[in-house]
Amino acid sequence: MNKKLTVLLFLLIPLMGFSQNCEKWKVFEISLKGTSAGNPFKDVTLSAVFTNSTLSDTINGFYDGSGIYKIRYMPASEGKWSYTTISNQKQLNAKKGAFNCIPPSKDNHGPVVVKDTFYLAYADGTPHHSFGTTCYGWVHQGDSLAGVTLKTLSRGYFNKMRMCIFPKDYDWNKNEPLLYPFEGKPLKEWDYTRFNPAYFRNVEKRIRQLDSLGIEADLIVFHPYDRWGYQNMTRETDDFYIRYIIARFAAYKNVWWSMANEYDFMRAKKMDDWDHFIRFFAEEDPYNRLRGIHNGSRWYDHTNPYLTHASIQNEDTYRAKELRAKYLKPVIFDECRYEGNIPWSWGNLTAEEMVNKFWRGFINGGYVGHGETYVTEVPLQFPERSSDVLWWSKGGVLKGRSHERIKFLREIIESAPGKLKPSVIFQSWMPFSSVTYKNEFFLAYFNMDQPRSMVLNLPGKSNYRIEIINAWDMIIQPVPGTFSGRCIIELPQKPMTALRITKTN
Amino acid sequence: MNKKLTVLLFLLIPLMGFSQNCEKWKVFEISLKGTSAGNPFKDVTLSAVFTNSTLSDTINGFYDGSGIYKIRYMPASEGKWSYTTISNQKQLNAKKGAFNCIPPSKDNHGPVVVKDTFYLAYADGTPHHSFGTTCYGWVHQGDSLAGVTLKTLSRGYFNKMRMCIFPKDYDWNKNEPLLYPFEGKPLKEWDYTRFNPAYFRNVEKRIRQLDSLGIEADLIVFHPYDRWGYQNMTRETDDFYIRYIIARFAAYKNVWWSMANEYDFMRAKKMDDWDHFIRFFAEEDPYNRLRGIHNGSRWYDHTNPYLTHASIQNEDTYRAKELRAKYLKPVIFDECRYEGNIPWSWGNLTAEEMVNKFWRGFINGGYVGHGETYVTEVPLQFPERSSDVLWWSKGGVLKGRSHERIKFLREIIESAPGKLKPSVIFQSWMPFSSVTYKNEFFLAYFNMDQPRSMVLNLPGKSNYRIEIINAWDMIIQPVPGTFSGRCIIELPQKPMTALRITKTN
Repeated sequence: MNKKLTVLLFLLIPLMGFSQNCEKWKVFEISLKGTSAGNPFKDVTLSAVFTNSTLSDTINGFYDGSGIYKIRYMPASEGKWSYTTISNQKQLNAKKGAFNCIPPSKDNHGPVVVKDTFYLAYADGTPHHSFGTTCYGWVHQGDSLAGVTLKTLSRGYFNKMRMCIFPKDYDWNKNEPLLYPFEGKPLKEWDYTRFNPAYFRNVEKRIRQLDSLGIEADLIVFHPYDRWGYQNMTRETDDFYIRYIIARFAAYKNVWWSMANEYDFMRAKKMDDWDHFIRFFAEEDPYNRLRGIHNGSRWYDHTNPYLTHASIQNEDTYRAKELRAKYLKPVIFDECRYEGNIPWSWGNLTAEEMVNKFWRGFINGGYVGHGETYVTEVPLQFPERSSDVLWWSKGGVLKGRSHERIKFLREIIESAPGKLKPSVIFQSWMPFSSVTYKNEFFLAYFNMDQPRSMVLNLPGKSNYRIEIINAWDMIIQPVPGTFSGRCIIELPQKPMTALRITKTN
Repeated sequence: MNKKLTVLLFLLIPLMGFSQNCEKWKVFEISLKGTSAGNPFKDVTLSAVFTNSTLSDTINGFYDGSGIYKIRYMPASEGKWSYTTISNQKQLNAKKGAFNCIPPSKDNHGPVVVKDTFYLAYADGTPHHSFGTTCYGWVHQGDSLAGVTLKTLSRGYFNKMRMCIFPKDYDWNKNEPLLYPFEGKPLKEWDYTRFNPAYFRNVEKRIRQLDSLGIEADLIVFHPYDRWGYQNMTRETDDFYIRYIIARFAAYKNVWWSMANEYDFMRAKKMDDWDHFIRFFAEEDPYNRLRGIHNGSRWYDHTNPYLTHASIQNEDTYRAKELRAKYLKPVIFDECRYEGNIPWSWGNLTAEEMVNKFWRGFINGGYVGHGETYVTEVPLQFPERSSDVLWWSKGGVLKGRSHERIKFLREIIESAPGKLKPSVIFQSWMPFSSVTYKNEFFLAYFNMDQPRSMVLNLPGKSNYRIEIINAWDMIIQPVPGTFSGRCIIELPQKPMTALRITKTN
């Protein structure tokens, strides 16, 4: 079909009474032909009102270049939906249509939302235990490397990806991106009134690819690793950009918004800017996608009611328990240093310590994120000259030894019978923590320590089965017999020992 | 000689003009026969004024039982000293004598004092780098086990012993002591007006034995591990006891005073008590021996001017740098958890982590203490029933793997050309620390991390030789060539890597 015929057919669909299907929580997209004259990004207004029998959502559209305008909508209720467009352009105004929202397919659990204060769950109620990783610049490296990254991700280590919308300038990431987000030319001659739609189409392709792997896209809206000037835009341009990415990306159910990476390292921005952005997303995003803000050295005040969760850079993941109580939100240690061997201290953890930080975070009621920074070269001069491809920046393959153990932990956490909350089965002053599901199930962990035995205080008069886990060796070994009340259990005297304790009946 | 003849000869010495010799910083002891009627501890006052050509020290004596009274004096100046006793008992009053204070022998460097705010040194100027260990109850276990302990200590791992004056009641230390400090009978029927001199003679025998090995005796005056009531004595009895131990022990040059172990766990004592004890020692101890106070969970305010150093229980030994600046005193992490395998978290560190804590403390300008808590049995019931002998409590032999590495570190520290102070040769935000002696010598350490290379910022235009140390393998490997300014060095990608950097020529 030629283009004109496609557009014609599309426009005829509502008139024809032909009804499209759209899976619940997937994207229904309206594409309209309009003018390319003037500056469509600035001059044209476009939205659509989507209604079913009880609900009505007004959704902004966006200009996608070449005279094409789009409106994306994620329906959250099954059944018949209809829409009418509103525009200051006659060509785009008062277009009507309808679709059927059909039940979600098996792997479609909907967007992740906050549940019961401290937890995350998909919209269908399935728990989401956040096991994130970080590839800041992976969308800007081209299809070939992105394909390798996606293949790595398909092995199921992680269910969240932390990634920058803007291109990244940093050690081991000095190459130019394939595309730029604004019209103009590098380094800094940008027309901040005109987006480059191809740039954003590339980002949303990656968002969809992640979604197809069951991976949340934690989109970093601003960041300081920048040589093109995107960190120094005006408030007006910032808001213009935010409206555009909401219109383009927000309908994808796996989108999260991270206001910034290391917000406090962005010198051109003040606290007032961050407060504004957080609130702006809350007001503008019709789906109310998760909102966080990631710190450098100075933590943001995560009690801000417009933040849905606390996004923390800090290596003391065991503090999750304390931070839950402080923020009354899900606590995600997005960055707790990375497994790797680079000189910068945030990237030279042993695999053992990366895994240890995951366990300590989860065993204190939090969530933890991974990153990997291995280099193979010691450059003659300084590390930023190296041509190594580091996972944390560009994606590719994982070279470390933590991700397999993180997957092992993920399987253990996901097989728990319900929401795990911090519990006390050791003396309260001990640094060993445990989480429980309603005293029916416990998971406890002894950090890098090597106790030969441990006194447990199991609740009530119930009997429990105990399995000894080694978080590094990935071994789960049942202990003969059952245990109850104050009891002592013999342990293998090895670092990274954990216990899984399950009520018998 | 029979006893009477000994006493007679002794009393005649001054009259005979016969002059004894006493090595500088050793103990000159006067022993006098007096009454044993009434309560000599309470009723008899005794002191002596020691004078040389320029100095005059008034030193309290003590009753040692069986009608014997003693005065102990540590002369700190060479040459002729004379003394006159003062007593409310005619038999003990106005006794005169003299001795020659002769130069110290090779291994006698005098008492340890604070030097240049943050450091410790012997009175002769020799630096004292405090490498402590802990055997709380070793003096109360009898000669046989104490002999084994001393043999272990003779191998040169440590130069300070943290030990309780009172007997200890705790897990793995439930046996009765051989002796009790007061007359009376256990558990709690004590005549708090009468000491048991044999008890204190046993303690001072151990103090002398430690001194002969070059080990400081960090005497813990009060502690909460008690079933006999010594933690609940009145202020009057506490002071009575303190005066007695000062009179008996203070003359030994290796004595330090630790007001308490875990002072905040002693419920009968208030902050006012601790403030009083600290000041009381400062006023009563004629030698001004080092004074510290060791915390449980709540740190004492070590800015108290009567405290000579900050004695810290905390596992974050890297905080030494920050605490130096806060307290402007030597910072000693007396307890940072122990190598061992017991259930209680303060005693189940791996050897690796014990050694790591030592390095991190020293490399941040502090001092660190060791302890070891290995059990061989998992008791049927609870760990306190075990009959294991744990070094931390009773002494004996060391079973772990950290002490050899601590000795290795001690040799490195002691071979440094001078006082080591915190320096910055890495980016200031990095968790890696270094210490330097006047930019001529550096020691740096990379914790448990595994960098493949490291950027160093060496000062000025000097050239430096670099050796790579592995703190665990105890290997020191020179790097070919010399380094200067901002430079990069290849590293072995192993935890516990350190660098020794020495200016050439």
